[in-house]
Amino acid sequence: MFDSERLTEKDVENLKELSRLAKGDIITMTHLAGTGHPGGSISSLDIYLTLFSHANLVGKARDRIVVSHGHTSPGVYSTLARLGHLPVDEVIAFFRKAKSPFEGHVVKGIPFIDWSTGNLGQGLSAGCGFAMASKIKKDGSHVYVLMGDGEQQKGQIGEARRLAKKFGLSNITVIIDYNKLQISGGIEKVMPQNIIENFLSDDWEVIEINGHDYNEIYAALKTARNAANPVCIIANTVMGNGISFMENKEKYHGSPLNAAEYKEAMGILGLDDKLDFYKEKRKGVWTWDPSSDRSDMAIDAGMSFTYNEEDKMDNRSAFGKALKDLGDRNISKGQLVCAFDCDLASSVKTSDFAKAYPDYFFQGGIQEHNTATAAGALSTAGVLTFFADFGVFGIDETYNQQRLNDINKTNLKTALTHVGLDVGPDGKTHQCVDYIGLARNLYNFKTIVPCDANQTDRVVRYAAATKGNFLIAMGRNRWPIMYKADKKPVFGEGYTFQYGAMDVMAEGKDGAIITYGGMVYRALKIREALAAKGMNFAVINMPCVNEIDEKVMTNLVNLPRIVTYEDHNRLTGIAPVITNYLVRKGFKGKFESFGATKYGASGDTDEVMETQGLDAGSMTQAILKMMK
Amino acid sequence: MFDSERLTEKDVENLKELSRLAKGDIITMTHLAGTGHPGGSISSLDIYLTLFSHANLVGKARDRIVVSHGHTSPGVYSTLARLGHLPVDEVIAFFRKAKSPFEGHVVKGIPFIDWSTGNLGQGLSAGCGFAMASKIKKDGSHVYVLMGDGEQQKGQIGEARRLAKKFGLSNITVIIDYNKLQISGGIEKVMPQNIIENFLSDDWEVIEINGHDYNEIYAALKTARNAANPVCIIANTVMGNGISFMENKEKYHGSPLNAAEYKEAMGILGLDDKLDFYKEKRKGVWTWDPSSDRSDMAIDAGMSFTYNEEDKMDNRSAFGKALKDLGDRNISKGQLVCAFDCDLASSVKTSDFAKAYPDYFFQGGIQEHNTATAAGALSTAGVLTFFADFGVFGIDETYNQQRLNDINKTNLKTALTHVGLDVGPDGKTHQCVDYIGLARNLYNFKTIVPCDANQTDRVVRYAAATKGNFLIAMGRNRWPIMYKADKKPVFGEGYTFQYGAMDVMAEGKDGAIITYGGMVYRALKIREALAAKGMNFAVINMPCVNEIDEKVMTNLVNLPRIVTYEDHNRLTGIAPVITNYLVRKGFKGKFESFGATKYGASGDTDEVMETQGLDAGSMTQAILKMMK
Repeated sequence: MFDSERLTEKDVENLKELSRLAKGDIITMTHLAGTGHPGGSISSLDIYLTLFSHANLVGKARDRIVVSHGHTSPGVYSTLARLGHLPVDEVIAFFRKAKSPFEGHVVKGIPFIDWSTGNLGQGLSAGCGFAMASKIKKDGSHVYVLMGDGEQQKGQIGEARRLAKKFGLSNITVIIDYNKLQISGGIEKVMPQNIIENFLSDDWEVIEINGHDYNEIYAALKTARNAANPVCIIANTVMGNGISFMENKEKYHGSPLNAAEYKEAMGILGLDDKLDFYKEKRKGVWTWDPSSDRSDMAIDAGMSFTYNEEDKMDNRSAFGKALKDLGDRNISKGQLVCAFDCDLASSVKTSDFAKAYPDYFFQGGIQEHNTATAAGALSTAGVLTFFADFGVFGIDETYNQQRLNDINKTNLKTALTHVGLDVGPDGKTHQCVDYIGLARNLYNFKTIVPCDANQTDRVVRYAAATKGNFLIAMGRNRWPIMYKADKKPVFGEGYTFQYGAMDVMAEGKDGAIITYGGMVYRALKIREALAAKGMNFAVINMPCVNEIDEKVMTNLVNLPRIVTYEDHNRLTGIAPVITNYLVRKGFKGKFESFGATKYGASGDTDEVMETQGLDAGSMTQAILKMMK
Repeated sequence: MFDSERLTEKDVENLKELSRLAKGDIITMTHLAGTGHPGGSISSLDIYLTLFSHANLVGKARDRIVVSHGHTSPGVYSTLARLGHLPVDEVIAFFRKAKSPFEGHVVKGIPFIDWSTGNLGQGLSAGCGFAMASKIKKDGSHVYVLMGDGEQQKGQIGEARRLAKKFGLSNITVIIDYNKLQISGGIEKVMPQNIIENFLSDDWEVIEINGHDYNEIYAALKTARNAANPVCIIANTVMGNGISFMENKEKYHGSPLNAAEYKEAMGILGLDDKLDFYKEKRKGVWTWDPSSDRSDMAIDAGMSFTYNEEDKMDNRSAFGKALKDLGDRNISKGQLVCAFDCDLASSVKTSDFAKAYPDYFFQGGIQEHNTATAAGALSTAGVLTFFADFGVFGIDETYNQQRLNDINKTNLKTALTHVGLDVGPDGKTHQCVDYIGLARNLYNFKTIVPCDANQTDRVVRYAAATKGNFLIAMGRNRWPIMYKADKKPVFGEGYTFQYGAMDVMAEGKDGAIITYGGMVYRALKIREALAAKGMNFAVINMPCVNEIDEKVMTNLVNLPRIVTYEDHNRLTGIAPVITNYLVRKGFKGKFESFGATKYGASGDTDEVMETQGLDAGSMTQAILKMMK
């Protein structure tokens, strides 16, 4: 902690010595691995040493640290090792070796590292998420975001600055390693930027220091911690500092030293060369899975709401009501729930929650990149976190942010509204017909598309109570409530949502239409039209668009025809999941997939569907053609 | 053009009258369609009328206009109609009707509209692309980017500002419709932002005006056109201006007037209600496909280079050499060629081109969103345009920018290097194992993954000479040159790349391994290992990862086993293309797909492959298991 006025001479001497040793570690591990980023690791080193020596690293309310320029991992590892938090020899020997946790870019779970990074420009957004967690949990922790200067070019950082200012995140401190070099050369040459003016223009405070003077670093960190605004510390540094021939050479941004250079550098540092020892050690294996350390939550998922047709309830409104109910049930018991929105609250139906829980509702503005990351980070802090947005913004625009969330094993519940051609008149830019195909690439995401308001309610509660990342997709229009023959809602009382289950909406022996979401009621219409022609088709609802329900599919494999029907790109929705299954099961019937085959028109949903041959009439014709 | 000092009184009277009529058009078309954005259309209207009356709209070197807040389309359509460039009645009657070009968000091809928009925050980047085209073609045209105030929150705009400043794009003028409202309310409430300070901090000039005073608009446009720096005009406006009850009400951002309000508004404007006429007319159909108007190019694709193993040529270097050769052959003949890079020139191998053609090389810095869009826009201006970046930045980070490029039918050649687990030690954030799955969602993109340097050379030349968007994917490592039995390169003399063709690398009767890129040489090793066990497998190279080559596949369908093998997410690469084909052809053999099943490790490529069971040893075992 920052209790003293300044560092003692002994403190400084100690840091200097650790810095000398750590520099040796950095150049040794990168030389040994033959890959890595020594230059920036060394320019950031004195900041790391000072910060990790004085931040509060103890207890549940410890400070959170995000290293946004994750490629300076050798600097982080050697700092943590020299401060006794990691084993020195293993860090050096197993850097960038498969199965070891000492990856090329820092990963979450390394002690006191709270966010896996590698993609530049996202770290401040993650820091904002942690700072929001600290504010709403009132735990007094501080968030430090260490950044490179090159990455300041990324626009997402401007978004994060505005968010931090809006929500008064005075508990966040940015430290920029301003070594003035990026891969391709001087930052003034690659992409001139007025970093200080940029921060000031967004109402941050800026402190400029010598990033190799421990007392200046300490004083700035102390001032920043007590400031009323978010503070950015510009630390003027030297790439390769202290190893004369490396200094200010961009070459060493991403290249290890060769054998001769290595020898020379160790000489300059006055350190013994233990390379043979490490080479031998590296032949072994050192595995350790940095735990994802996801805070536990105690979610009361509540009782499901059941809607009837006369309630005129669309899926996104059902989401909004479930969200509000989750707030009601949990917040008063101390299990925090929060929701993020990007200037669409009344469309994505977070308004009720926002009104009831203004302290836990975060309006992120038209800044989707920042919002997706901030929400992802907050979701790892024991707060049940929803991010509601139009499909095209919540996954298309933010795919890489959601990907980094996924790598970080976040616990984010993304509510995508306005997916599909269902969006209608807003046109092709707003018609998200790729969300399933995109999210399928994210190994820890579960995508669910409920088909009516009742199923939506249950899916939202399921996702809330289940750890991990979810994508719950909803359209714009109101889709009819599904009823059983006894006039009771299919997804009402007696129904429990099970991840992976398919719902048999209607049986049939001439074929099956497999579908989901807003196409289910359309498929039932097609079924009727086919019945009028003497054909009896099953209709299967597949809300878990990546999962095969063996129990249901086993029966379908023997049918003469299977059709997938979706409000999604025909190639990347459920069709590949079904064909993958069918080909393995030796399906002998006819298969056809129906979905969007081009960017959509701007018009009423039904008209837009028609232009893609997805209306009930065209579909009936197309299926009848298959019968020939 | 801006020849006079100021507008005459008659000019102003004329604009006032057009504005009155256009306001009627706006509220009529949105009321009629029951959807659309009247508020911002009206606040932007006087800017549109003044700009479209005075910009140079004639000839090849006409000014380019980007309406970034594309939802103000009613304002654009009514302006163009009232200025005689569109038919008034059709614009009103067919707004947001499927098949009509008068979409909810403006689309390219509407007269003088050069970029389809809808996703906020990308317009200035597109404008930068057009301004760069104007600079390198030296045609003296000016670029106007009309923007909303809410969208200023998007970080990509900061990136574009820096690009414009760096490249001295004084031929670009931004006009912000500063009505101070966004969907959810006042911009100060939703996300406070210092727009003027933000622009000034990036060294732009700022002019503040009354956005409803024609002479102020005219004077500012004139000043901006002649300025030495890029200029941002902040036009203070009133949402719903001139219709008292609509003024400054955020409600009318995205909601049309109801019947009573409509009547009242038409009364205020002193206009006759022709609603019945338009309702009747709207029952008809009015189709017109706004031509994509892609400028023709005359590309000399040149003679292919052929490499041998001793050339030690990796695919990305082969790309760099082909790029430089394309520059050599075309630029001197007046067919411009350019390349964009994001601070990775030496890795993505654009350095040779950059050195030879510094005027046509654009270093975009660590600003991928902006770069992808700027490159996309430039590619529509008759300039052969390459965008080279790591896979994870060129498509994962910029998916939504590439999607809007695709909607705009750009002509962009994206060279993705460092795809796959092949990236090795940089670890999971940098291992792009989803590029095929992502790009498959883009209807007009062609994705090609060449398997050696020779095929790369030919693919690059093919993409250069072929209209449309391409993704050419390359790894980090050097992969061996493929040889025929006669010791001549497979993809050397006598080989012509054909889009959609599969290459039979080896025949076999016990099964086939279908693969591409850096897995081809691995598959040949697996084939050898299987041969040692008495199994004879074919190896098929499938560089066009979305295409079935009937000629080749017809034979494979009769094999007892088919395996897909890829350095990509197992679910979203070529496997779905193959299963889709096999299930339709009634394939009776065994099928298995191999690829990445989790985020990758940080280590040597071979080790990383091994952790996913993709090394030759694990693969051979897995295939032998299939034989049982």
